[in-house]
Amino acid sequence: MKAQKKHSGWKNSLHEVIYEADTPLGKLFDIVLVILIVLSVILVMLESVKEVDVKYHQILFTLEWVVTVFFSFEYIARIISIKKPWKYIFSFYGIIDFLSTIPLYLSYLLAGSQVLLALRAFRLLRIFRILKLVKFLGEASQLRDALRASRTKIMVFIYVVIILSIIMGTLMYLIEGNDAGFTSIPRSIYWTIVTLTTVGYGDIAPQTNLGQFMATVIMIMGYGIIAVPTGIVTVEFNKRREKQWVHTNTQCCPSCSAEGHRDDAKYCYNCGELL
Amino acid sequence: MKAQKKHSGWKNSLHEVIYEADTPLGKLFDIVLVILIVLSVILVMLESVKEVDVKYHQILFTLEWVVTVFFSFEYIARIISIKKPWKYIFSFYGIIDFLSTIPLYLSYLLAGSQVLLALRAFRLLRIFRILKLVKFLGEASQLRDALRASRTKIMVFIYVVIILSIIMGTLMYLIEGNDAGFTSIPRSIYWTIVTLTTVGYGDIAPQTNLGQFMATVIMIMGYGIIAVPTGIVTVEFNKRREKQWVHTNTQCCPSCSAEGHRDDAKYCYNCGELL
Amino acid sequence: MKAQKKHSGWKNSLHEVIYEADTPLGKLFDIVLVILIVLSVILVMLESVKEVDVKYHQILFTLEWVVTVFFSFEYIARIISIKKPWKYIFSFYGIIDFLSTIPLYLSYLLAGSQVLLALRAFRLLRIFRILKLVKFLGEASQLRDALRASRTKIMVFIYVVIILSIIMGTLMYLIEGNDAGFTSIPRSIYWTIVTLTTVGYGDIAPQTNLGQFMATVIMIMGYGIIAVPTGIVTVEFNKRREKQWVHTNTQCCPSCSAEGHRDDAKYCYNCGELL
Amino acid sequence: MKAQKKHSGWKNSLHEVIYEADTPLGKLFDIVLVILIVLSVILVMLESVKEVDVKYHQILFTLEWVVTVFFSFEYIARIISIKKPWKYIFSFYGIIDFLSTIPLYLSYLLAGSQVLLALRAFRLLRIFRILKLVKFLGEASQLRDALRASRTKIMVFIYVVIILSIIMGTLMYLIEGNDAGFTSIPRSIYWTIVTLTTVGYGDIAPQTNLGQFMATVIMIMGYGIIAVPTGIVTVEFNKRREKQWVHTNTQCCPSCSAEGHRDDAKYCYNCGELL
Repeated sequence: MKAQKKHSGWKNSLHEVIYEADTPLGKLFDIVLVILIVLSVILVMLESVKEVDVKYHQILFTLEWVVTVFFSFEYIARIISIKKPWKYIFSFYGIIDFLSTIPLYLSYLLAGSQVLLALRAFRLLRIFRILKLVKFLGEASQLRDALRASRTKIMVFIYVVIILSIIMGTLMYLIEGNDAGFTSIPRSIYWTIVTLTTVGYGDIAPQTNLGQFMATVIMIMGYGIIAVPTGIVTVEFNKRREKQWVHTNTQCCPSCSAEGHRDDAKYCYNCGELL
Repeated sequence: MKAQKKHSGWKNSLHEVIYEADTPLGKLFDIVLVILIVLSVILVMLESVKEVDVKYHQILFTLEWVVTVFFSFEYIARIISIKKPWKYIFSFYGIIDFLSTIPLYLSYLLAGSQVLLALRAFRLLRIFRILKLVKFLGEASQLRDALRASRTKIMVFIYVVIILSIIMGTLMYLIEGNDAGFTSIPRSIYWTIVTLTTVGYGDIAPQTNLGQFMATVIMIMGYGIIAVPTGIVTVEFNKRREKQWVHTNTQCCPSCSAEGHRDDAKYCYNCGELL
Repeated sequence: MKAQKKHSGWKNSLHEVIYEADTPLGKLFDIVLVILIVLSVILVMLESVKEVDVKYHQILFTLEWVVTVFFSFEYIARIISIKKPWKYIFSFYGIIDFLSTIPLYLSYLLAGSQVLLALRAFRLLRIFRILKLVKFLGEASQLRDALRASRTKIMVFIYVVIILSIIMGTLMYLIEGNDAGFTSIPRSIYWTIVTLTTVGYGDIAPQTNLGQFMATVIMIMGYGIIAVPTGIVTVEFNKRREKQWVHTNTQCCPSCSAEGHRDDAKYCYNCGELL
Repeated sequence: MKAQKKHSGWKNSLHEVIYEADTPLGKLFDIVLVILIVLSVILVMLESVKEVDVKYHQILFTLEWVVTVFFSFEYIARIISIKKPWKYIFSFYGIIDFLSTIPLYLSYLLAGSQVLLALRAFRLLRIFRILKLVKFLGEASQLRDALRASRTKIMVFIYVVIILSIIMGTLMYLIEGNDAGFTSIPRSIYWTIVTLTTVGYGDIAPQTNLGQFMATVIMIMGYGIIAVPTGIVTVEFNKRREKQWVHTNTQCCPSCSAEGHRDDAKYCYNCGELL
């Protein structure tokens, strides 16, 4: 039982260092982790720049190993020191931690595993929590709630936009023929979305008069369309701010004729009469 | 009379299968229909991709026939099984169903009938109804109502934008001469709208100093202009939401502890107690 | 005196035909005018399209003369039939009518007078009035009022945007050197505004790493910046809609402690006590 | 003591001329200053235009010296005539004034000092104060307050956008390989931000089908994303305006005909009469 306790005590210390930041060692661990997360993202970027990779390949490769080993130990330590390991392993952060650790190991087994490196940037989200940016977390969750609440509206909106893009894209393909990059319907749909969202690369652009006229129509439609998500999100933000407001019905008090009762009102707020 | 009844019964069964989804057969029909609608849209796209069409022409052509035959039978069945066929035939969905069925037949009669294929994407709207996405339909109609209510304002806005584009386009044509793609006034107007809507392809771009200065003015005007439809739509969304909300205070009923009373309430809406 | 009266009667008839639309002749005049205004704008456009001008030069030239002669007579008739001619002549519409009539006459006297043709499109604004689109006029004036009310805020905003563009443009000129189109500071400022307004032609684009990083910063700034005019205009639209709302102060009734009195209240709205 | 007083009087006069605008000399100084600030900014621009610099180098150089000498004297005079010179020297305007004065002197000592010329544009902000555009200053500070209040939300938003851009940029680099300009991850991230902000230069554009599909996803995400800062700023503007507004009805006082009573008013706010 002593061993158990000791063991538990050793686990507790590890838990304190990794998951909390009250002790000096816990703070040090957090700072090192933030630095290594940022470093790991920068490493992935630098390796992709040919001139840098040619010159400093050995240094970058060594640093990549340092980061990977640290992340591996961190991942194992997180699993050991927590009471319900499976909950961590299958949590959002647990999966991200795992996937940002394994690419280097995998690269010896199978090609194409660098795709996982892209996910490493998700670890940057942890910085919010590590730096105890509670205020920021509150703001972030407000934004997330507002976006989540307007999810259905935005999905309907995007679905309609996609249908419109397919129709307009097909028409543009028929109008422009094969010239000017409109070589297939999927490519024309790509162009339509580039235009509707007002991105406008210009890699594909209509050449015929009718095509340019249609493009004009799509752009002016894009005007109205871009207003919709902004309107949805703004209203949602407003709603969140006006929380003290409740919904009322059109019922009228039989005794004093007061109106504007709460939906769930049983008595008149003005004269106390049963509604 | 028996035959009549039997006939009517047969019609009723068909109606149930096609227009409703309570029976297993009705559900099956709906699922098959959704799959074929999505398939029919994908077919049109794939046929336009040269490499795919060359390789799989026979398969695509066969599938196109399968879809067309199914749609033909569905269209006829819809007409037969409904009480007022003309109402369906001339409804929005009736016309779309007809137009997405005939292109293959028409292609033997006259060229250029592929234009109708573009309309097939409209059938995707039916998925809302088929999948009984009532919640989505509600959201969609809210969006539609808000857009409809702001229709006049947006039309005035677009009319003024078009007049401005004609004026600015004509000026740019005179400034830039024939260089840099400003070869005619319609093309200059096309460029002006590309700029005002902040799309900016770059296929046409001013080269002279005066032209670039004018472009800057148009872009900064575009700033203010893009704000207008967003403002209109946002206000319309807000209006829809605020219709029946009143302000409440944090007072708590002394008798039943109900909260959320109107600011001017004298009696509890829940128990009628004097507040 | 009889002649005087007759003359006046003749003037009145002309006034009725031109300025009103109650008589059949007045309606006919309005319809002809709308058609000719639209025709005159289309003519200017077609003349600029080389292929069309080469083929149909004679027809276009004749039609231009027809329009010009009609507009000349209309302009003279408007002056004659109105009581205060100077008020019309120096009104917005009077000046536009004059300037859209003279270019053809001027073209015999001095070159470059086609610039005035651009102003002809302003006559399209008259269609609102001619077609008695009163409802639209109301909407238009609402939009105009909202934009006018937010004028100061938008001017401050644009002034700050211009200062920012000068600073960023100068920095980009120093960073990118002469490559990639950043040949002078004015051109770099042009590029900065193209980027800040999210137009993005791509005729000029940064090539160096530092330049691309700066561009990224400008684009993300542009995000925040584009939100400002939208916010200003939306609030202004909202204000206009909430007219029934009045401003209250923090005064408290000495008798019943009711709060939220109008700024100009003399008596308590709740108990009638003098405040 | 007389000398002291005299000195102080001389300082006071200088202070009045430079910092105030009540005397004719003070007004003249302000006007000259505004002209020279605008001139100094235009000079920096013109010097960068090769054709202009070659032709008028001597004139531009002389004017640059005129401006620099005036600014030098102004800077020294500001320091002398103010009571707490250090407060001015280390204020925002003090630093800008210093940095826009020294580039010409520095150019004899070290190369690359032209970077400071970019800061000269900040002096344009002083025009607000010089021209006593108090109304504009009020509007400007309102905008600044609203932006400052939404600072945390916007920072969270930008942080999330950057993480998204890193992830999407890395994926696009892996998808597009080295073709089409996606030569490294930093460059792909640059492209992602160009797309997300709907700028869309088109200097880099995806060529593969998968790349174009991913681009479409990013653009549609950009739709939702661009709505967020607009929503944040709009709500902030609204909050500022609504602080003390209550709803009124169209009731009219039977005694004094005052209008605009609170919805729950029982007595007229103007004459105390029972409503």
